[in-house]
Order: sequence, then C-alpha cells, then structure tokens
Amino acid sequence: MNFKGMDILDGAQFTRAEIERVMEVSEEMRERLRESRSLNLLRGYVLGTLFFEPSTRTRLSFETAMHRLGGDVVGFASAGVSSVKKGESLEDSIRTVDQYVDVIVMRHPQIGAARRAAAVAESPVINGGDGAGQHPTQALLDLFTIRTERGQVDGNTIVLCGDLKYGRTVHAGVELYKHYDCRLILVSPDALRMPPELTARLREQGVVVEETDDLEAALPEATVLYMTRIQKERFADPEEYERLKGSYVLTREMVERLNPDLTIMHPLPRVGEIAADVDALPGAAYFRQARNGIYVRMALLWLVTGQSEA
Amino acid sequence: MNFKGMDILDGAQFTRAEIERVMEVSEEMRERLRESRSLNLLRGYVLGTLFFEPSTRTRLSFETAMHRLGGDVVGFASAGVSSVKKGESLEDSIRTVDQYVDVIVMRHPQIGAARRAAAVAESPVINGGDGAGQHPTQALLDLFTIRTERGQVDGNTIVLCGDLKYGRTVHAGVELYKHYDCRLILVSPDALRMPPELTARLREQGVVVEETDDLEAALPEATVLYMTRIQKERFADPEEYERLKGSYVLTREMVERLNPDLTIMHPLPRVGEIAADVDALPGAAYFRQARNGIYVRMALLWLVTGQSEA
Amino acid sequence: MNFKGMDILDGAQFTRAEIERVMEVSEEMRERLRESRSLNLLRGYVLGTLFFEPSTRTRLSFETAMHRLGGDVVGFASAGVSSVKKGESLEDSIRTVDQYVDVIVMRHPQIGAARRAAAVAESPVINGGDGAGQHPTQALLDLFTIRTERGQVDGNTIVLCGDLKYGRTVHAGVELYKHYDCRLILVSPDALRMPPELTARLREQGVVVEETDDLEAALPEATVLYMTRIQKERFADPEEYERLKGSYVLTREMVERLNPDLTIMHPLPRVGEIAADVDALPGAAYFRQARNGIYVRMALLWLVTGQSEA
Repeated sequence: MNFKGMDILDGAQFTRAEIERVMEVSEEMRERLRESRSLNLLRGYVLGTLFFEPSTRTRLSFETAMHRLGGDVVGFASAGVSSVKKGESLEDSIRTVDQYVDVIVMRHPQIGAARRAAAVAESPVINGGDGAGQHPTQALLDLFTIRTERGQVDGNTIVLCGDLKYGRTVHAGVELYKHYDCRLILVSPDALRMPPELTARLREQGVVVEETDDLEAALPEATVLYMTRIQKERFADPEEYERLKGSYVLTREMVERLNPDLTIMHPLPRVGEIAADVDALPGAAYFRQARNGIYVRMALLWLVTGQSEA
Repeated sequence: MNFKGMDILDGAQFTRAEIERVMEVSEEMRERLRESRSLNLLRGYVLGTLFFEPSTRTRLSFETAMHRLGGDVVGFASAGVSSVKKGESLEDSIRTVDQYVDVIVMRHPQIGAARRAAAVAESPVINGGDGAGQHPTQALLDLFTIRTERGQVDGNTIVLCGDLKYGRTVHAGVELYKHYDCRLILVSPDALRMPPELTARLREQGVVVEETDDLEAALPEATVLYMTRIQKERFADPEEYERLKGSYVLTREMVERLNPDLTIMHPLPRVGEIAADVDALPGAAYFRQARNGIYVRMALLWLVTGQSEA
Repeated sequence: MNFKGMDILDGAQFTRAEIERVMEVSEEMRERLRESRSLNLLRGYVLGTLFFEPSTRTRLSFETAMHRLGGDVVGFASAGVSSVKKGESLEDSIRTVDQYVDVIVMRHPQIGAARRAAAVAESPVINGGDGAGQHPTQALLDLFTIRTERGQVDGNTIVLCGDLKYGRTVHAGVELYKHYDCRLILVSPDALRMPPELTARLREQGVVVEETDDLEAALPEATVLYMTRIQKERFADPEEYERLKGSYVLTREMVERLNPDLTIMHPLPRVGEIAADVDALPGAAYFRQARNGIYVRMALLWLVTGQSEA
C-alpha cells in the first residue's frame, strides 16, 4: 500500500486496507497533537488551496492541518480572484500552480473538476468537493468520527437523513461504509432520495439498505444519525427548497424519547435540521467531528506527500 | 492577574493593573523585535482571523503580530467567503473554527458579536471591532502610543475630535483613559457628540470632561490630539455625511500657530481630517501608532494564550 | 552593486551587471531547492502582498517564493477588502503596511502606482504589475527562461507576438533585452503595435528591431517565440477585442513545419493563442517559465532585503 503521490478524488477509490491506514494515521496525529500543538512532519512543504467555490470550513480545516504539520499554505478563497475570469482553462490554472506547490487541495463547482486537475498535475490533488460530486475527505473524517464515538465501524446502524439526492458527503460516505458490516437506513423526502443506481450498487455489495421517509420510525434502531443540510444552492426552484427544508428537524425531546444513546453527526453548516438544545447532549458529536477533520486531513497530507515513508 | 484564556471584548473590562501589564509586555515586545525580526514565543500556535467585515489594517496587523511571534494564521477577509451565506449562525461558525485554532480574532458588523462568540468558544476571542461597538485593541495601542510619545499617560490633556457618537475607537478609548489622571476635551459637531450616558459615566468616575465644537479653541491646551474619521458607512443619509465630513481639518499651519508640541494621533484611515503637510511634523504620530499596533497585539496574543506564564 | 533596500519598479532600472546578478542568484536558488524544499534565508521576515487588482498567478508565485525562503506572508488578494473603499489614499495605505512588514509586493491597476508606493515606503517595494505599465519580475523570469532554455541570452532571435501596445510584460522585457546581443522581431496587428517611441529607443541603443504582422514569416528565423494574450480588459470597445483576439494562434503543425527547434514562451494565462497540442512539444517552455518565477522572485526577495550580504 503506497499513498505517495496518490490523488484523493472520491470515496470509491479506496480499499478497506487503505481506509484503515488513513484511520490509524489520523489517530496517530490526534495523539501526537496532545503532546505538541504542531509537528515538524511537513516543514518546508507548500500546500496550494484552490477554492474556485468558497468553503470556509473545508479551507480553514486543510490550512490548519497543514500548519500543524509544520508546512505553509498559498491559495485563494473564491474564483473571483483567480485567473478564471481572464478566460484561462482549469487545466492551465492547475498546471501553473503545480509548478509552485507540493500538494493541491481544490474545491470546484463542477463535477469531475478534481479528476481533470489530477490528470494534469504532478503534485497530488485532493478533492475538497466538486459540485454535487464527491467530497472524500469529509467521508473519511465522518468514518473516523463513527469509529471514535462508537469504538468501531462494524456493527453500526447508520441513519442517513436529509438530502440524499444531491448531498455529496453522503455519496462519498456510502462508498466507505460498503467496506464495513453496517446497516444503512436512508431517510429522505421522496424528491431527495438517494439515486437508485447508488442504492442498487450498495445492495449488490451486500450492504443492508432500507429506505423510508419517517425519521422517528428509524431512530430507535440507529446507533448513528447522520443529518445533512438541504442545500439551497442545489435547487433550481426556490419554492421547492422552501417546501422541503423543514422536513426533518431533530430535537432534544426526540433523542431523549426515542434513543438517548444516539451518536448525532452533521457535516455542518446546519440551518435548523438540529435544534440548538441538542448540542448539550453527550451524543452530539458534530463539533468533535469538525475537530476530527484536522486529524484526518493531516494524515492525508502526510500520506500523499510520501513523508510517512521517509 | 491571569490573562490565560481571557477574552478581549471591550475597553471597560480592564483594571488599571491589567492595562499596565499589557503596556509593559508591549514594550518588551518592541525591545525584543529590535534584536530579532521574529520571536519563537507562539511557535506551533494557530490564530484564526475571522473578518465578517473587511478591515485590512486590523487584519494585517494581527496577522503580522502572530507571524512575528512565530505562529501561523488561517482565516477569511470578508463575509462573502464564509459559511454565513449558507445560513449558518454566528455561534456555529465560531464553534467550528474553535475546533481548529488556538486563538480567535474577529471583526463583525454587529454590536455584541464578539461577546456572543466568546460565550461559545473555548479559545480566547479578541474583538477586532464589532460595528459601532467596541475596538479594544485599538484603544490599547492608542494608550501605548500616548505613553510612548508623552512618557506617561497621567497628566495629559487629550482632545478627542470628530465623530464621537459612532466612533468605536473613541468609545473603547475613554474606558481606558478613565483609569488615568487625564483631562478630556471632546470636540465634535453637535450631531456627532459623544453619547451623554458615556460622558456622564466618565464624570462620575472623576474624569474631567469638557465639550465644545471649536477645535482651534481646544488645541492650545492639549498635549494630545486624537482625530477620527467621520465614517461614511455609519450614516443613513449621504447628505448629512457630506455636510459634516469637512467639519474638522487639521493643518500644519494650525499646529505651528496654536501648539507646536502637540502629539497628533489618528486610528486611520484618514480621508482628509489631517492635511498631508502635517505628516512631516515631529508630533505626527499616526504611522508610529500603526507600528505600535504590532507590539500591543503581540502582547495580547502572548498573554491570552497563557504562554507568558510558561 | 548593492541590492539592499532597492525597489524593483521597472525593467529600465537595471544595468546588465545587475541583471546578471539576479540571474546568478536565481540559478543558485534553483540548485538549492533541489536539495531542500525550503531554505532558511528569510526566517522571521514578513512579506506584504498588496494586490489592489487580482492576480492569482503573480501573488501565489511571490507567496510561494517567500515561504520557500522560510519567511511569512500577510496581504490581500483584491481591492474589495482593502481600505481603499473607505477613501484612503494609496500613500497612506502603503505607509501603514510599511509599519508592519519587511518587504512589499504590489499589483495595482494604475500606471505609476508602484513608484508612488516606493516613494513613501521604507521597506523595498516590488512592482507586481501596474496597469498597462511595467511588470519587471515577469521580465526577469522571462529572461531567466531564455537563458535556461537556450543556454544564453546573447545571439537569440526573439519573436514578440500579440498585443505589443498594452502588454506590460513585453514593455518590461525589451528594457532587459536591450542589454544583450539579440534581434527582436515584433509581430502584431497594426492596431496593437509597440509604441513607436519604445521601438525608436531600442534602435538608438543598437538593438536590431523588425516589425511585421505575419507570424508565419517570422517563425523560421526565430530561436524564441514569446506569445502574449490579447487582454480583454485593455479594450474600451468589446467589438475591437473580438476582431483582434484570434489574430495569432500557434499550432503544433506550424511549429513542426516552420521551426521544430523553437522555444515557445507565454506569460500566461493564455486564452487560445497557443493550441493545446503544442504543450507536448519539447520547446513548449511556458510551464517551466512559471516555475522559474519562483526562483527569480526568491532571488529578488533575498537581494532587496539585504540578506544576501549578511
């Protein structure tokens, strides 16, 4: 298993052994950060953060991860300041930055953009989200959170709730869950169901997948609830967004009544899917999940630059 | 006196002893930077600069301060690239970044935003300006400048001139001056007078406060003139802005005629309140004042992270 | 020859000896980076990157250069987040940042802006492009590329093609070429010819300069082709832009038929002047040219801070 030079493009690219390696290195990062606020593992390396679409959360998480590895960062936070508006192709933009930096993280509004970048860059490219496509580092940090909160991934019943049609974190996630002995319960309004080809593929691979539109019915059987935001920017019709956005709202009362041991996750930002009074519950893991992103991204940066083998 | 973990929210929070401690550490920073361009005091620490409202000056000053302490920085320069436009609450944004970084500096257009942030963050939060509210690090660097330029703060007659109604640097400043044996002369157009409750409170605490709309009458008695910009963005009515903005313009001729020993300060940016020919006068302290911001912010970052006690 | 404190404002400021010194130090940087991803030459120094006009390429190149020297960076990527919109003068903005940082790189839409900045800043100011004016670091990295690709600068026949009227990289470039024994062939549509006063001055200094509008006629005699983008933002009339932009498009077939040994350069971004199938030719040097920008900018930052003499 060799991560050096590997592009991180989607959840489907990994074997179970590779996923486990990322999990172990992430744990190692967490342990080492307990002793020191930053490590000297990537001193002298430069990360390029190319955010053609803004994402404060993902960008700051990667930039913090790079700094805590001892490395430096250059980049941009939105397409408005990039050469795109001068008419440059994505490939040329990437090939240029590839001359400067040692590893690239990229967010782009178009599906497949990260793969196009990886095809022309010599440096490893990490997909930080490509439109309604993939977001593999989010999926890995989600898995790391399940593992940390529940002890292991095998044996969990995971309720995925919200926008399962467009939600890229969910799409990337199921590509990882399929390697584990998990049961998935998909909860969504009918208009936002997971694409049938994805559900079919999961079942072929032996994953137990159930679908419902009733969150309360699903909760008692769950060990993990993964809530997602219904993303305004994915809707052509604002009225349809307004109609659907309130479909599922988790409250403290629901958790205490139906499943007090529940681990509650969310990729954030939330816009009301989880009531504020849930935050104080011991199972509310979404801010710890954000923290886990640092460890997992440190692990990935360290692995793909090949420094873990030095 | 323990600064570790302290949030820096407004000028009113400090005792005189705390202010003096900040002044002493700021002096220490200045001295140490004479020997070395950067110190190793916060190596491995990450500062988050969350500027929901742009402010190049304050942001670059804090970022430079952090780098000169040996630390790193992540952040954003305007709300346009933050998750706010996805509908996230301020509290959630802060709680997330709090998982990444060791200390937060924040600028926000709403009064009280920094206090809300501090209520949910474990990391220390430093208010870099909240609307027409407070701007305590500016007030501290102003005080440091008076101390440096005049030898001490006690015994000065300080003319505060311009927009005393909305000017947050002035509001934060008087909360510090009240601990010292100073005389304040407030010079403003009637429409931009200091809020009467603030003036009343100062007088209760024994500060000598006079009010006038005549700058020339006030100048001969002053040791320090603190000019402020009449901020366009604080006016609902552009005509009122146009009428008031030229009310007070300091010229070299005025200084030489009325008070050649005057120390002239300004939080910058200026838009004409101080004529360019004033810049060459020995008492023109406003660019030295900008430099002092580095020392004071280094001191604060070092103090609130608790490293000064290590 | 003393570079310490030197402002880098335009191509015309250099003697041949100074240019050669920059070339030699750039080569040294390239060699040292082969052994280590970053050097410790400017540890503790802070670079201010003030981009009043966006330029991802130039900004990221300088920021990477600074990090690979071991230094830190503060700055802004567009005027939208600077104090300019509060009405501050350029001089005041510069004087303030000058209090914070050790060296300034600046991009600005107005000709002469960098010179105005240098007049008020104590720190060295490097012009990263000022409107249709100069872009000296681009010119130096272009020269370094010719030297690297062809072995030396003397003896080359350089075809400059495209927008020679507004193209600042070309204007800065000829100020360097004039010190060498080169022949220049200027290829442009009539409306975008090089300003006659510039051509006249080159001829006075003994440079062989020819002008034509026929790229194919010029190519067989060239050793180097320097293509430029016809910049939309320099045209008042969009129709004139549309008419002229396709005037010159280099294809692989042209290179193979007319001059297979040709070195092909472009400051980038390109918007169609060089067909994608040219990229695979051994003479396609434009991405190596981008890489050379790191070495040349490292050299300049090291020279003007005076650390090369330490």
